[in-house]
Amino acid sequence: MKKIALKSVTLQAEGACMSKKDILIEGGRFARICESLSPQDLDGAEVVDCSRFAILPAFYNGHTHAAMTLVRGYADDMELGRWLTQYIWPFEAKLTAGDIEIGSRLAVLEMIKSGTVFFADMYWHREQTMKVVEEMGVRAAIGVTISDLLSSPEVLEQNFEFLKNHTGESERVKLVVMPHSVYAVGNQVLKRCVEVARSEGYLIHTHLSETLKEVNDCKEKYGCSPVEFWDKLGGLNERFIAAHCVHFSDEDVRLFAGAGATAVLNPCSNLKLSSGIPPIPALMAGGVKLALGTDGASSNNNLDMHEEMKLAALLAKVSASAETLPAGEALKMATVNVARAYGLCDAGEIREGALADALLVDLDNERMVPCHDLVSNWVYSGDSSCIDSVICNGQFVMRGRHVDGEEEIKEAARACAKRLANA
Amino acid sequence: MKKIALKSVTLQAEGACMSKKDILIEGGRFARICESLSPQDLDGAEVVDCSRFAILPAFYNGHTHAAMTLVRGYADDMELGRWLTQYIWPFEAKLTAGDIEIGSRLAVLEMIKSGTVFFADMYWHREQTMKVVEEMGVRAAIGVTISDLLSSPEVLEQNFEFLKNHTGESERVKLVVMPHSVYAVGNQVLKRCVEVARSEGYLIHTHLSETLKEVNDCKEKYGCSPVEFWDKLGGLNERFIAAHCVHFSDEDVRLFAGAGATAVLNPCSNLKLSSGIPPIPALMAGGVKLALGTDGASSNNNLDMHEEMKLAALLAKVSASAETLPAGEALKMATVNVARAYGLCDAGEIREGALADALLVDLDNERMVPCHDLVSNWVYSGDSSCIDSVICNGQFVMRGRHVDGEEEIKEAARACAKRLANA
Repeated sequence: MKKIALKSVTLQAEGACMSKKDILIEGGRFARICESLSPQDLDGAEVVDCSRFAILPAFYNGHTHAAMTLVRGYADDMELGRWLTQYIWPFEAKLTAGDIEIGSRLAVLEMIKSGTVFFADMYWHREQTMKVVEEMGVRAAIGVTISDLLSSPEVLEQNFEFLKNHTGESERVKLVVMPHSVYAVGNQVLKRCVEVARSEGYLIHTHLSETLKEVNDCKEKYGCSPVEFWDKLGGLNERFIAAHCVHFSDEDVRLFAGAGATAVLNPCSNLKLSSGIPPIPALMAGGVKLALGTDGASSNNNLDMHEEMKLAALLAKVSASAETLPAGEALKMATVNVARAYGLCDAGEIREGALADALLVDLDNERMVPCHDLVSNWVYSGDSSCIDSVICNGQFVMRGRHVDGEEEIKEAARACAKRLANA
Repeated sequence: MKKIALKSVTLQAEGACMSKKDILIEGGRFARICESLSPQDLDGAEVVDCSRFAILPAFYNGHTHAAMTLVRGYADDMELGRWLTQYIWPFEAKLTAGDIEIGSRLAVLEMIKSGTVFFADMYWHREQTMKVVEEMGVRAAIGVTISDLLSSPEVLEQNFEFLKNHTGESERVKLVVMPHSVYAVGNQVLKRCVEVARSEGYLIHTHLSETLKEVNDCKEKYGCSPVEFWDKLGGLNERFIAAHCVHFSDEDVRLFAGAGATAVLNPCSNLKLSSGIPPIPALMAGGVKLALGTDGASSNNNLDMHEEMKLAALLAKVSASAETLPAGEALKMATVNVARAYGLCDAGEIREGALADALLVDLDNERMVPCHDLVSNWVYSGDSSCIDSVICNGQFVMRGRHVDGEEEIKEAARACAKRLANA
């Protein structure tokens, strides 16, 4: 891998204090951050003038359904049941493995362009998405999505078999056991998920307490909340990552925080589908580990982590006080907190030794002017237009807002979506 | 003014139906929208190939304090009282007329780049802001800001004198009487505002029921809510435009809607300052005319109307149902509804005869792919990075994401903000 030297890049130290540093990227990591790199450091490195740029951690998307980019804008502004049964599910039923590859490629392109280099994906035909992730140079936690309600018994068994072999895992791609939810997976199959996760060392990721209906149905069926149910299954621990977490009781918060599990909030999706406002102050007060995700493009309708980050901060404030979830904490929810939940322990921060995943943000973009406080500007004023370049694993995956092959990716997605809509 | 012919531009007709049309812009208006412009139409026109673009109405920002771009990120994440008294007011006290010109110019640049061509501005040193608006080719309703609490008696009288002369009004710049609020302006001065607005034919724009404290203080002082107080003053009518409107009682909604007044919501600012969630479904149900604004950059922290539009739709849905405030209605709140409130009766829509204010949105931006529904994509998935060009009054004010003179504007703002922060 090529050595890269970032010259005179702005970073934020403690508080609002900013400084210009040189950064050497080598072996996929931030090898050195200093006043001025030595000739030895620069030897063999590509030197990039960063005097116009600030470096900020790249986003990690804690929950999505990547290939649903194909359904973006296909159906909106309607009640959940009608939306799912009359529009989304019939559309999804037509998706082939090839379509999912095309949709995932568009998703990865969109994520890179909005500054995201990792995503946790819960969908079908995982091999296609894994291939796209490898090709496009990003990272992912790819779900082996488990559901006895949504899959045939054969597919269900194939999934458990697949989990035993760790097929396709690599430096940048990990598998995660992803039982869909307590309402789409039966009791016995959920138990098998907990067992295989334990025996094979996998994380578990699932939808949890997204709607009040889900919580009430669970209470009726199992006599307890979804969080309590996962606790009874033995699945609630530090290796448990739940999406949504909109409807938690005080007891849910206590159990979930005590187990060291992570809640991945998806505020745009929760608001758009009228599921509820994630109770961020209560989760924070209870000590729950918090991270962010976008959910799929059909309920968001984009994969932009910046929007989730700003919205999370705003919702936390209006639910409690203006001091709640300051900019720096919101940024962590969209970066290092997601990384840690998914086992990327040396990632999500700009520091020596960490994985070199980063954004070069254009300080000359009008939204970043003036710059009293870099992190405040980025979180509250910035948007995707401020991102000039994106680095993943020490390599540029976007440069000057261009991603290699992007025209072909969009053209293929356009044709595919049109064919499916008319099929 | 130059004739412009937009060739093969995509527009959305009824529902999700899209078509490609030619559009002739002449005399600052959409002169013709048709399948194919004639040679006579094209004679003397600049022909622009728009096969990659959709045309959408430009944004109109119903409430801001433009020059506060200089305070962007200067203080965040703190309680309102401390924020105002320890940070914002001391900073603002240092602003000269020249500083306000510099800050307003940055604001107009930022608004153009995020698709806004009109703003209603409540601030000081209006002549400077009016000059910037004329120079940069956009539109504005410029406030003669009235406050006996925040101004000296001399300045107060100068303001009323200014209102009698209509100094500086033009095709693109109108004056509006802007008493700050019921808490920063006394009873007698508010009455004078109502009188001068009536006698001189001005609109009134004011802050209204932004916080619960404001409502409670008003009840204590005047024995009624701020809305009821304006009603008693005789100021509540079709020419009354109020910013915020977060805390309305049922009776407030009835009075306000009955008067035909317009509420300009500022959801980002209301959430960030923890003022409350604007009660959009209740306002809609009561028949209140609704529009959107950004508020100032110190409490938002940008001037991006797209963010307000998406957030308004999301908040409406989570407050009521997923069907509430569909994409097309949210777009109207950010465009035509603002235009109508401020007396731009032929603006905010792409139709023959309307003022030619518009955005060329890049259909090749990944966020707009695939395009099952143009308006849904724009409202729920797009962001400022999708805007290629901006047209105001039939002339390009941004082209290929470039605004003339933008480097100098940013450099001046940077130097000015630095000087003020260190002063």
